[in-house]
Amino acid sequence: MVETALIVGAGKGLSASLARRFAREGMQLALAARNIDKLQDLAKETNARTYSCDATQAAFVTQLFQSVEADLGAPDLVVANVSDRYRGPIDELDPGQVRRSYEITALSAFLVAQCAAKSMLRSGRGSIFFTGATASVKALPHSTPFSMPKFAVRALAQGLARELAPKNIHVAHFVIDGGIATSRATPGEEGPPDRWLDPDAIADTYFHIHRQHRSAWTWEVELRPWTEPF
Amino acid sequence: MVETALIVGAGKGLSASLARRFAREGMQLALAARNIDKLQDLAKETNARTYSCDATQAAFVTQLFQSVEADLGAPDLVVANVSDRYRGPIDELDPGQVRRSYEITALSAFLVAQCAAKSMLRSGRGSIFFTGATASVKALPHSTPFSMPKFAVRALAQGLARELAPKNIHVAHFVIDGGIATSRATPGEEGPPDRWLDPDAIADTYFHIHRQHRSAWTWEVELRPWTEPF
Amino acid sequence: MVETALIVGAGKGLSASLARRFAREGMQLALAARNIDKLQDLAKETNARTYSCDATQAAFVTQLFQSVEADLGAPDLVVANVSDRYRGPIDELDPGQVRRSYEITALSAFLVAQCAAKSMLRSGRGSIFFTGATASVKALPHSTPFSMPKFAVRALAQGLARELAPKNIHVAHFVIDGGIATSRATPGEEGPPDRWLDPDAIADTYFHIHRQHRSAWTWEVELRPWTEPF
Amino acid sequence: MVETALIVGAGKGLSASLARRFAREGMQLALAARNIDKLQDLAKETNARTYSCDATQAAFVTQLFQSVEADLGAPDLVVANVSDRYRGPIDELDPGQVRRSYEITALSAFLVAQCAAKSMLRSGRGSIFFTGATASVKALPHSTPFSMPKFAVRALAQGLARELAPKNIHVAHFVIDGGIATSRATPGEEGPPDRWLDPDAIADTYFHIHRQHRSAWTWEVELRPWTEPF
Repeated sequence: MVETALIVGAGKGLSASLARRFAREGMQLALAARNIDKLQDLAKETNARTYSCDATQAAFVTQLFQSVEADLGAPDLVVANVSDRYRGPIDELDPGQVRRSYEITALSAFLVAQCAAKSMLRSGRGSIFFTGATASVKALPHSTPFSMPKFAVRALAQGLARELAPKNIHVAHFVIDGGIATSRATPGEEGPPDRWLDPDAIADTYFHIHRQHRSAWTWEVELRPWTEPF
Repeated sequence: MVETALIVGAGKGLSASLARRFAREGMQLALAARNIDKLQDLAKETNARTYSCDATQAAFVTQLFQSVEADLGAPDLVVANVSDRYRGPIDELDPGQVRRSYEITALSAFLVAQCAAKSMLRSGRGSIFFTGATASVKALPHSTPFSMPKFAVRALAQGLARELAPKNIHVAHFVIDGGIATSRATPGEEGPPDRWLDPDAIADTYFHIHRQHRSAWTWEVELRPWTEPF
Repeated sequence: MVETALIVGAGKGLSASLARRFAREGMQLALAARNIDKLQDLAKETNARTYSCDATQAAFVTQLFQSVEADLGAPDLVVANVSDRYRGPIDELDPGQVRRSYEITALSAFLVAQCAAKSMLRSGRGSIFFTGATASVKALPHSTPFSMPKFAVRALAQGLARELAPKNIHVAHFVIDGGIATSRATPGEEGPPDRWLDPDAIADTYFHIHRQHRSAWTWEVELRPWTEPF
Repeated sequence: MVETALIVGAGKGLSASLARRFAREGMQLALAARNIDKLQDLAKETNARTYSCDATQAAFVTQLFQSVEADLGAPDLVVANVSDRYRGPIDELDPGQVRRSYEITALSAFLVAQCAAKSMLRSGRGSIFFTGATASVKALPHSTPFSMPKFAVRALAQGLARELAPKNIHVAHFVIDGGIATSRATPGEEGPPDRWLDPDAIADTYFHIHRQHRSAWTWEVELRPWTEPF
């Protein structure tokens, strides 16, 4: 049976590597983003359908899942990948942007997870993955508007892992602790090799976690370059 | 010099014990809540001023701090105490209420912390305390809308502890891991004594943390009854 | 180039699955245990060499690594798998057994890790893996002599991950959070399927972690059955 | 009723401040150390009895508690304070010293805790406190022999907190995250004031935790200077 993967918050970088890896494993692909123009090359390469979706709006996310189910069947793997990165010293932050940053990062993750959970509770199986960052587990100075929703997404992932595992749904949270290389070879760059996370290498681990036997599931995975202090 | 304490999200229970304790230590008290009618007895008892404030609105929180500063001077201790408790299985949650729960619990904490930080960065000292719960560190099934903003508040507290400690501002996060007793003796109740957190006992530790010498500050404190499994 | 894997504390259960998986991937195998009689079938099946070794004695562990290097070359992957499980209420524990439990679980892990590190610092690459348990991250009542060395092994793994990653040595700690199935089908057993960790499934993840690209290394992995509360 | 406090691993620095604070609160004091010659001034100042004890030997620790009980009654508060600090790169460590370091730091803590627990299970109350360090929660490079027993002591404290709290015994673990000032004013020292932990300030928090109402106990407290990054 062909599996269907849905990546919400698709773009370049990690999500492109995920798409290529899932396609190579024979999965059908659905790519959702606010602006799907930038996804056309990737969609062609991975034979994916694209869906325009503002993931901060409940109605749009519901519609997205309805469309994907109609086109490709219930998703077996959903990756919630939308994130904002607003930062600054506490006395310089704009409250409106703090609220917006929460909506982009945390509320979208909730909406995607809820629709994924509803679909998978019906189909009786599936994986829901969240892409986190260092800020998901460590709140650094000048990063409160980034860490607040990232911690919230981790709470969502942890709570759903406990709630949905006994329903045969595998929920996992990935802590990407370091910078992601956008290309594998940057001519003239200095420093040790492989010091930025190769998105294809991250995709290897996402796919491994999706394939884990349910007797030995992992709910959280940290990934960092060999040269990254922690 | 007389210190000023501001409790945002004042009501019965913990905040009443905090108010009584701070008053007994000679502090001037400002109590803020959405509905201040219920605060009148406590305000009289603790000689406190009361302020009506919807802490989910930036403009109202700014106004609150302006009023408190005008009436009582810059606050030396601010307690962010507002919290919602919306819960449910993932497939039964209302996205609008999830968003609202975030605003009540996490956005209000941010807005209060930002105004407190601005004021204390000017005065060069102070304490900002956040009241957390079990859900701040452990996301349980059917509790995602409660854990998400509680994790976010912990991120805020941790990030600000790192950002503001070197500015002589003590930020602390209290994990209240158990039920708070609303009265110390409930006639006829069963079970071991002291199995609910005595709010006066919690207030003892809040006050101790406020008085800690800055060479030995604590940023996070868990409090739980002797009978509580963890 | 053929890789060499050394499992210290080999027996039935997890280590047998690891041995079979590594052999299937084309690795040369060295199996070390106090009593190697019980390893003969597995050794034959996986074409492995066996080494008798009391891993609580520094001299014996040094000798083990010398023999393995002479026979099979410097190991590319070393799994430290020795563990004791002494438990009891605090007032009933025998201090001599507490000390012995530390030696079996923690000192052996240190001795193996030190020899592995010395060898890999010379060869410039390798993986050192530690098998942990729930008790590695959560100390439960009546389990102090089990948790103490398990926490110590986690400290060893975490410290070495930080110390050796920049030397191209991948150190990882596996938290096995649940019971391991010794056989996949126990006739007549009650309860949901796959509620015990399949050792072959655990071995899949060990092998995946060994193969991770160094730009995206994981230092700690929790594995638990879908039905296991946490 | 006069309380009795026993500090095992007494010397200068923190334990002297603890002794002075406990004495000032009216407690009877027992100070134990390998070498009690250095304790004479402190003993005189705090009206304490001193006991010579090698805390790595079970028989000596048992004898210590028998002597203290005979002299001063069952201890109400026991502080386990013995620690070694052996460190180094993994390939330069001496296994004999690694083992010795474990005995000094972790085995002594176990032996003291076991005798304290037995005594307090009989008397039906008491506090057992452990002094930890940064290395108790974070294993740094070149510090494995220091972190291993420190993590083990934290496991001991956490396991006993869970095991003994329901028996009315308060177990707490203090993470001292920074350098302790041996004197409050070092003429000519550079850097911001209060950047080393004042041992009197640490003692304030130890005493507060001992006095906590059992409905609101803390099992772990981090203490760090306002200027300390974390």
